[in-house]
Amino acid sequence: MAKSTKTKLKVTPLGGINEIGKNMTVYEYGSDMILVDCGSTFPEDDMPGVDLVIPDTSYLVKIKDKLKGIVLTHGHEDHIGALPYVLKEINVPVYGTRMTLGLVENKLKEFGLSTSVKLVHVEAGSKIQLGAFEVELINVNHSIAGTVSLAIRCPVGLIVHTGDFKVDYTPIDGEVIDLGRFAQLGQEGVLAMFADSTNVERPGYTMSESVVGETFDRIFAESTGRIIVASFASNVHRIQQAINSALTFDRKIVISGRSMVNVVNVATELGYLSVPDGAIIDVDKMNSFPPERILILTTGSQGEPMSALARMAASEHKKIEIMPGDLIIISAMPIPGNEKMIHRVINELFQKGADVIYESLDEIHVSGHACQEELKLIHKLVRPKYFIPVHGEYRHLKRHAMLAESLGMPPENIFIPDIGATMEFSETSCKVAGSVPAGSVLVDGLGVGDVGNIVLRDRKHLSQDGLMVVVVTIDKETGTSIAGPDIISRGFVYVRESEALMEQAKAVVKSVLEECRNGKVREWTTIKSNIRDELKKFLYEKTKRNPMILPVIMEV
Amino acid sequence: MAKSTKTKLKVTPLGGINEIGKNMTVYEYGSDMILVDCGSTFPEDDMPGVDLVIPDTSYLVKIKDKLKGIVLTHGHEDHIGALPYVLKEINVPVYGTRMTLGLVENKLKEFGLSTSVKLVHVEAGSKIQLGAFEVELINVNHSIAGTVSLAIRCPVGLIVHTGDFKVDYTPIDGEVIDLGRFAQLGQEGVLAMFADSTNVERPGYTMSESVVGETFDRIFAESTGRIIVASFASNVHRIQQAINSALTFDRKIVISGRSMVNVVNVATELGYLSVPDGAIIDVDKMNSFPPERILILTTGSQGEPMSALARMAASEHKKIEIMPGDLIIISAMPIPGNEKMIHRVINELFQKGADVIYESLDEIHVSGHACQEELKLIHKLVRPKYFIPVHGEYRHLKRHAMLAESLGMPPENIFIPDIGATMEFSETSCKVAGSVPAGSVLVDGLGVGDVGNIVLRDRKHLSQDGLMVVVVTIDKETGTSIAGPDIISRGFVYVRESEALMEQAKAVVKSVLEECRNGKVREWTTIKSNIRDELKKFLYEKTKRNPMILPVIMEV
Repeated sequence: MAKSTKTKLKVTPLGGINEIGKNMTVYEYGSDMILVDCGSTFPEDDMPGVDLVIPDTSYLVKIKDKLKGIVLTHGHEDHIGALPYVLKEINVPVYGTRMTLGLVENKLKEFGLSTSVKLVHVEAGSKIQLGAFEVELINVNHSIAGTVSLAIRCPVGLIVHTGDFKVDYTPIDGEVIDLGRFAQLGQEGVLAMFADSTNVERPGYTMSESVVGETFDRIFAESTGRIIVASFASNVHRIQQAINSALTFDRKIVISGRSMVNVVNVATELGYLSVPDGAIIDVDKMNSFPPERILILTTGSQGEPMSALARMAASEHKKIEIMPGDLIIISAMPIPGNEKMIHRVINELFQKGADVIYESLDEIHVSGHACQEELKLIHKLVRPKYFIPVHGEYRHLKRHAMLAESLGMPPENIFIPDIGATMEFSETSCKVAGSVPAGSVLVDGLGVGDVGNIVLRDRKHLSQDGLMVVVVTIDKETGTSIAGPDIISRGFVYVRESEALMEQAKAVVKSVLEECRNGKVREWTTIKSNIRDELKKFLYEKTKRNPMILPVIMEV
Repeated sequence: MAKSTKTKLKVTPLGGINEIGKNMTVYEYGSDMILVDCGSTFPEDDMPGVDLVIPDTSYLVKIKDKLKGIVLTHGHEDHIGALPYVLKEINVPVYGTRMTLGLVENKLKEFGLSTSVKLVHVEAGSKIQLGAFEVELINVNHSIAGTVSLAIRCPVGLIVHTGDFKVDYTPIDGEVIDLGRFAQLGQEGVLAMFADSTNVERPGYTMSESVVGETFDRIFAESTGRIIVASFASNVHRIQQAINSALTFDRKIVISGRSMVNVVNVATELGYLSVPDGAIIDVDKMNSFPPERILILTTGSQGEPMSALARMAASEHKKIEIMPGDLIIISAMPIPGNEKMIHRVINELFQKGADVIYESLDEIHVSGHACQEELKLIHKLVRPKYFIPVHGEYRHLKRHAMLAESLGMPPENIFIPDIGATMEFSETSCKVAGSVPAGSVLVDGLGVGDVGNIVLRDRKHLSQDGLMVVVVTIDKETGTSIAGPDIISRGFVYVRESEALMEQAKAVVKSVLEECRNGKVREWTTIKSNIRDELKKFLYEKTKRNPMILPVIMEV
C-alpha cells in the first residue's frame, strides 16, 4: 500500500478538450504508460491547404519507452486518424474490437505500415493487462459498431473513460450498452470519470437507431422509383437498416463510393453486417432491374465535392446518372461548416428532377452521442469522485460540468483542464500538476508539421489579395538598373484590363530605384523594403487592396 | 384594350433566385421600367478576398432610360446593398418607407452619394405612379421595421410581390400584416404572385416577435449581473424589447458597436424606437452603476471577428471587459457558414466566467420569414393565376412550388425561372421568353467586377500550396545564365527548415537551363514552361504539394 499512495496516476489529454476531434489521452503510472485513442481532426477554415490535423505527440515520443500499448474505443477518424503518424515513431501493439481494428488495418495499409504493427483483438467484456494498468472494455452504443468504454485500473484506483457513447435500448445488433457493468463499477468505487460532452446541449434522449429503420421502411413502402441512401460509410448499423428495407421491399443493392465499398467489405467479413448472397449487385448490372427494384448505398452525406453523391449530382459520376423519379435520402446531419456543400448537392439533385429527403424533414438520422438524460444516467450509475468532461469545445465542457453540479457533485471535484495539462491522482485527491507540450500538428501532403504560422499567414495573405513580383537586374559596379523592372501579378487584378495600373506600378518602382541611386543607397534590403513600401501605398490608394509584394534584385 | 393585349409585361429577376441574397427584379411594360429591390450578398467560400457580391446589372444599364424608379421593400442588405453601385450608373429616384430610406441614407453617405440621389418616402397603404406602373405598398411583418409587400399594377394586370414577410398577430409596433388588403387584391384578381420561400422547409408558424420579449422579461427578472444582448442592429423590434425589459427591471442601457449606434439613432429619430430620456447612458458612465443595473446592446450575433461582441470575448474591446457574472444573450440564429465563428465567441465568453444563452437553448430568437402555414395563408388570400417562388435556393423554390401544388394550383401555372430569365405576361398567359445577362459581380476594395474566375482560381491555388518564384538573368548574346537562379517561396514550406529542398530545386532549374542551352532553345516561353514542368514534378514528388511556380527570365 505504501507504494500506491506514493506513486501518482497521471492523466494527460493531448487532444479532444476545448475542441471536437483528435482525441488522445495519456495514462501514466510509474514507468508504465498507455495511450487511449489516437485521433485526427479536420483543418479549420484558417488553415488553407492543410489536409489533416493531428495532436502534438512530442511528449509521447519523449517517453516512448514507457508506452505499453494503444487502446482504441472505436474506429472513427477522431479516434484513430493519427495512428499511422504515431506508429511511425513508436511501434507498440494496438488494442481494439474487431470492427475498430478492421478499419485500422485498412488505414495502415494505405501508409505501408500494416505488416510492422501488432494489432490485438479484444472484445467488450474482456480485460487487457498493460504493465500496471488493467483495461476493461465495456460495450456501449454509438454510430459505429464495436464501440467500447474503458474501465482503467491501476494501484491508485479505477477510472471510467467513456469515449463516445449513447444509450440505445433497441440497437440494431441487440448489444445494448452494458449499464449493469457501469453500475457495478459505481458500486466498486470510481475515482474519476472522463465523459463524452458532444451532445450535452441537447435535452432529453437521443432516439434509438431503430427509429431510422422504421422511417426507411415507411419510405421504401411508398417509393416507386430508385432509392439512393447517403450516409457515413462507418455507420454499419445504418447501412444494415437500409439493406434490410431493401430486402423487405425486394430491391437489389448497389454499393457506391470507395469508403462505402471498403467498409461494407470489412464489416461483412467481420460479421458486423449481414447481407444474403446475391442481394448486392454490381453497378454495371443495375440497368437490368427496373428503378423500383434498386437501392444505391453511397457516400457523400456531407456534400464532399469528390464524394460519389456529389459527383452524381454534378453529372460527373461515370456509372450513375440521377433521373427524375429518383429519391435520395441523406441519412446524416451536416457537420458544422459543411452546410453549404450539402445544400449545393441537394439543389443540384432537385434540379435534376429527383426528390430529396434531408435534415429535419423526417426521422432519417439519429445522433451517436448521449443527450442530457443519458449523461445523467451514466453519472448516477458510475458516481465518480472526480469528473472531467471531455470531447467538446469549452461551451460543451462547461455545460457538462454544470450538469454534473446539478446532480450534486461538488464543483471542486470537477476539472476542465486544457490539452497538455496533467491531472495527478492519488487514491483520495486530484489536482492539475503542470503541463506538457500539446497542440496541433498540421499535415499537408507528405509534410508533417512543416506548415506553421508563417506559411499559413502567407497563404491567407495570398488568398485575400494575391501577389505582385517585381524583378530588377542591377549592375554590380554602378548600381544602375540594367534590366527591368518586370512586374508579374497573380490573384490581384485581371491583368489584361489593368495594363495602365501595371505601367504606373513600374513607374513607381523606377522612381524608387532612381532615388536610391541618387542617395547612394546600395543595401539590397533597404532598396527592397523601399520598393515594397511605395508600391504598397500606391496599390492601396488605387485599389484598396494589399497584395503581397515580392521584390527580387539580381546583380550582374 | 387593344394596346394592353398587345404590349406584354416583362418581369426579369436579376438576383434572388437559386440563391439567398442579392434580390433585384426588373418590371418592364412598353417604354416604362421599374426596379424592385437592389440587394447584395456575401461572397461564397470559394471567393477569397472578395468583399461583396452584387447582381450583374448590365441589362439594367443598357436600357436605363426606361427606368422610372427603384422601389424598396425593406432595408436589409440583401435588398439594398447594391444600391450605391446601381445609383452610380443610373441616377433615379428611390422609393421606400422611412425606416428603409433612413438606412439607405446612411449607406449612400458612406459612398459620397447622399446629395445626388432623390429619396422619396412612401408608407404602407399608399401608392406610387411610375410611368405605366402603379405600385402600392402593403404593410407586412418581418425582422426589420418598415417592411412592405408590393401590389404592382399595369395594363396587363396585377402582380403581388411579397418581398420578405411573415405573419405576426402580435407585433411589437402593433402593425399586423395587412391581411385584409391581400384578401381584397385576391378578390380583385391577381395575375401572378412572386413570394418569399426562405422558410418553406419549416412546418407550422413562425412565432411572434413578442415571444422574445416574454423570454427577455423572464431572464431579466432572474438575473443579478450585467446583461449583454447581441442581435442584428437592424432588428429594431428586438432592440425595443430588450430596452423595454431593461426599463422594467431598472437597468441603464449602453449601446455598443458602430452599426448598433447608427441604427438606434436612425430608428429613434424616425420614431420606430421609443427610448425615454436618460435611459441610454454613455459606455464611460457604465461603471457608476452596479452590474445588475446595466444592459449592453451590441452587435456581433454572428461572431464576426471585428464586431463589438467578438472583441469583448477576445479581451480586445477598449471599453467593455467581460466579467464572471455577466450574462450574454445571443438573440439571433447563425447564418449558415457562421456557426464556427459564433461558437468561438461563445467558448471565449464561457472561459471568461460569463454565462451565455444561445441558439435553441431558449426562446431568444424568432425568424423573420413565413413558415409553411403562413405561406398557405397568403396563397389562399391572394389566389394568383400564376405563381413564381423567389428568395431561395433551388430546394426552397422547388418545395414552395410543391406547396402551391398541394393547395390546388396547376403545375403548369408555376414557374421556377433562373436569374436573367424574362417572364412575359399577357392578361391571360405567362411564359418564359428569352433571357438577359445576369450573374454575380464581385466587389473587392475599389474594384467592381475586376476580380473574375482567373483571379479567383489563382487566389485559391496560392492559398492551397503557396508559390515559388524562380528568377534567372540570361545573357542576350550567348543565352547563358549570368545570375541566378534565385528562388523565393511563400506559403509553401517553412524555408529555414527546407534549405536542402531549395538547393535541390535550384539544381533542377540549372539542369533545365543547361539542357535548353545545349538544345539551342532560346524561346523564353519554352524555357519557362520547361522550368515550370520540371520543378512541379520535382516538388510534387518530394512534398505531394503543388505550389504555383512563377519563372522570371531577365535578359541583359
